[in-house]
Amino acid sequence: MRFHSAADLAARFGLELSGNGLIEITGVAPLDRAGAGDLSFLSNGKYAGQLETTKAGVVVMRQADSGRLPAGATALFAKDPYSAFARISALFEPVAAFDAGIHPSAVVDPTAVIDPGAMIGPQVVIGARATVAAGARIGAQCYIGDDCHVGEDCELQARVTLWLRVRLGKRVRILPGAVLGAAGFGLAMDQGAWINVPQLGGVVIGDDCEIGANTTIDRGAMGDTVLGNDVRLDNQIQIAHNVQIGDHTAMAGCSAVAGSAVIGRYCLIGGNAGILGHLTVADRVTVTSKSLVTHSIREPGEYSSGTPLMENREWRKNAARFKQLDALARRLGQLVRSSGASGD
Amino acid sequence: MRFHSAADLAARFGLELSGNGLIEITGVAPLDRAGAGDLSFLSNGKYAGQLETTKAGVVVMRQADSGRLPAGATALFAKDPYSAFARISALFEPVAAFDAGIHPSAVVDPTAVIDPGAMIGPQVVIGARATVAAGARIGAQCYIGDDCHVGEDCELQARVTLWLRVRLGKRVRILPGAVLGAAGFGLAMDQGAWINVPQLGGVVIGDDCEIGANTTIDRGAMGDTVLGNDVRLDNQIQIAHNVQIGDHTAMAGCSAVAGSAVIGRYCLIGGNAGILGHLTVADRVTVTSKSLVTHSIREPGEYSSGTPLMENREWRKNAARFKQLDALARRLGQLVRSSGASGD
Amino acid sequence: MRFHSAADLAARFGLELSGNGLIEITGVAPLDRAGAGDLSFLSNGKYAGQLETTKAGVVVMRQADSGRLPAGATALFAKDPYSAFARISALFEPVAAFDAGIHPSAVVDPTAVIDPGAMIGPQVVIGARATVAAGARIGAQCYIGDDCHVGEDCELQARVTLWLRVRLGKRVRILPGAVLGAAGFGLAMDQGAWINVPQLGGVVIGDDCEIGANTTIDRGAMGDTVLGNDVRLDNQIQIAHNVQIGDHTAMAGCSAVAGSAVIGRYCLIGGNAGILGHLTVADRVTVTSKSLVTHSIREPGEYSSGTPLMENREWRKNAARFKQLDALARRLGQLVRSSGASGD
Repeated sequence: MRFHSAADLAARFGLELSGNGLIEITGVAPLDRAGAGDLSFLSNGKYAGQLETTKAGVVVMRQADSGRLPAGATALFAKDPYSAFARISALFEPVAAFDAGIHPSAVVDPTAVIDPGAMIGPQVVIGARATVAAGARIGAQCYIGDDCHVGEDCELQARVTLWLRVRLGKRVRILPGAVLGAAGFGLAMDQGAWINVPQLGGVVIGDDCEIGANTTIDRGAMGDTVLGNDVRLDNQIQIAHNVQIGDHTAMAGCSAVAGSAVIGRYCLIGGNAGILGHLTVADRVTVTSKSLVTHSIREPGEYSSGTPLMENREWRKNAARFKQLDALARRLGQLVRSSGASGD
Repeated sequence: MRFHSAADLAARFGLELSGNGLIEITGVAPLDRAGAGDLSFLSNGKYAGQLETTKAGVVVMRQADSGRLPAGATALFAKDPYSAFARISALFEPVAAFDAGIHPSAVVDPTAVIDPGAMIGPQVVIGARATVAAGARIGAQCYIGDDCHVGEDCELQARVTLWLRVRLGKRVRILPGAVLGAAGFGLAMDQGAWINVPQLGGVVIGDDCEIGANTTIDRGAMGDTVLGNDVRLDNQIQIAHNVQIGDHTAMAGCSAVAGSAVIGRYCLIGGNAGILGHLTVADRVTVTSKSLVTHSIREPGEYSSGTPLMENREWRKNAARFKQLDALARRLGQLVRSSGASGD
Repeated sequence: MRFHSAADLAARFGLELSGNGLIEITGVAPLDRAGAGDLSFLSNGKYAGQLETTKAGVVVMRQADSGRLPAGATALFAKDPYSAFARISALFEPVAAFDAGIHPSAVVDPTAVIDPGAMIGPQVVIGARATVAAGARIGAQCYIGDDCHVGEDCELQARVTLWLRVRLGKRVRILPGAVLGAAGFGLAMDQGAWINVPQLGGVVIGDDCEIGANTTIDRGAMGDTVLGNDVRLDNQIQIAHNVQIGDHTAMAGCSAVAGSAVIGRYCLIGGNAGILGHLTVADRVTVTSKSLVTHSIREPGEYSSGTPLMENREWRKNAARFKQLDALARRLGQLVRSSGASGD
């Protein structure tokens, strides 16, 4: 078991200690479930009331909230308690062994180049002309296809597929089941049947990106599909061909971006939100969950579509009226005119 | 070919026979496609008219509907025809061979503990300290990660991933491509870049759960993501970190639950429905397809959001008016006031 | 490097050459990024302005647009420039090697029948009574389950699962991570717990279909789930048990069809659209992105649901009014009646 004293943590992470520096921390927990050996945090003022009842040994919090701290309690003051907590919390994360080398069950094309400082797990398959840089970890049952490149210190967990012409920057982490570099969905109708439009581009992923479980990122038709640096994608996201996503943008689970859309930096895309093709989304745009972006967004801000949740019987009545909305508005207009009222 | 007489089925499943007990059944089919050797069922009264034309040898149905049964037809009367049919139908399901033991192509960590009564398929990879109980079947190309536990009589079909700290109860069935135990999507912004919040918890799945193909269930940040007993998840569902789902709740395909939401027992979540994070949903709540749950639900019942499907041109007119809805309502209010009408 | 002169391309694809037939083409690019060695195309008149500035060596376009072509530029005239471009573009697609035979790391059931002209990749697992026809390519780490059939010239890319009773026609292409033939989501409630309704059918896929990455197609409960010929499914689509999809229908990413729905020919289903179970959709129906089809559609045309995207604060005001919509409509009706106006 790892343990760290409150004083040590204060020194190591540059935080201000209030209380007993000798308290030893062996894990982390939320305020309402923490015990004497746990570190907890208060970031959202809404939970400040929990300070009075928490059994946490040490709480990471803003000094401004210290008035809520019971007498005798121990705290570490941070400007941003959540990120400070995240950094401390990493001390308690078990680190999996890293043994460089190629597992004997892996099948590696003779033209692939694997750095001796990379780790290739069991039952991995690596294709022609692929390269894997030093410090990269390719987990069990991954597939690294032709002309793919895995940068330094990347981590591909189990069953990740880089199908074709995927280039990863450094420190990219990809969760199980993700598929990068599959053909974009490009079709042309020809004499009553579909023909495929060849998808000749690739996928380029910047440094420090994270790709969630079972997420898919298609390769470009002409040119590449591009993620900048520090882009964070949750699970089951679909990124179509030739999409571009700016640095530090984060997308929540089940969201999707259609072909050739360009998304700015520092955007936050909510769960199951969608962005139509060939649109542009400015920097620092937030799209709320399940909204559909149907036109380009030029200004930072928060955007939404959809209707509120209601008890089903009430919803049915209102939804039926939605079908009459234009007629209702026209009727109201007539009434306003006939009444001589000015409206607004 | 398996066959069973109507009389045998009546005795075996405790149903009342009406008609010819000697009829032999060799398969199952819906009323409108069944032949003389088929068993069929009538559960929804809407289809009672099909009784007159069906060629089914035997029909499982409610005795109350027997008036619709043509003279000379054979039926098995059940209180709940659909579940009775399901039980009988299982007689016609081929059972795959179960040969306990570890396939020679599997790669098993020396610290893993595999019960001799478990079956480990080809090209399976099993990590450190993992345990697999008796009667469990681990299908081809599965990955069982570090510190995972597979309970008695579980069935993991092909290409299932338990990434880290996943504990399955008994008789859990997981369909191909599902990923359990990947890191929850926990991020903190720190000096303009994202840092990961370590996901130190695991996933705990109760007895008799079913997890659909390509569904993802993330492990908890602090504490576990928890499914109770007999929870049924369809394909491509996303369950975020620290979600809790109560016993007997069923979720249809492509639905999603955001972090730390707590869902009750016996809930029915429709296809592509979403539930936002940190909400509570009471027992016996139904959410209709594609609805978004944006606030906690305290009462059982059926809940919905969205608008009705319309021909696109009509929809455009009405959707444009949605953007004026608040203005329209204000104008209407003014008009009501200026007319001296009481409104309601 | 492959290269082709404009005159050769004109002859090979039956197009009319305008300009310099000696220009050599070594690749393809969009008008705004093409260089002197690139072929480009103009299909959508909206982009005709780019003709004046493009550096493309040759442009595939309609003769009707030739007035926009700068003097001295070279073009290939086609009735349908996009499909002509797609066909030419295929000349520049690298063709992966096809070496018939079974990789030594594959595990093939002794009762399976593999045509000597098929290619079975590394770490593939093939189950009992499965058959693979000549010219079929089974990529790395695929799983071909019991009683599955892969037709001539099919291409299963990496990590595709055909779980049980899946029959593919000819030239079917399946992208990584797709799962066909998993159990449909059939449940019956029995004394307070769920029991599975056995899924005794299979999946039948016609010729020339394409199935996207991580898409799932469940097998039928009684009878099969059926895709016609030339059906095109993008990534992360969910097709439930007993669905039928007509020839040439294309569905965009993250769309979903619930059980037993019947979809016609030449339909276009937008991204993340949903179709409820047991519905019928006519031929040549377009459903826009994120719409939910809640009733059968009898007529060709375009159909939609949802509300427009708005800045969040505006959206909140209007969304709140949606909850009052029925009340507002009633109040308006009263006002119309009390004013003696005829309305419409």
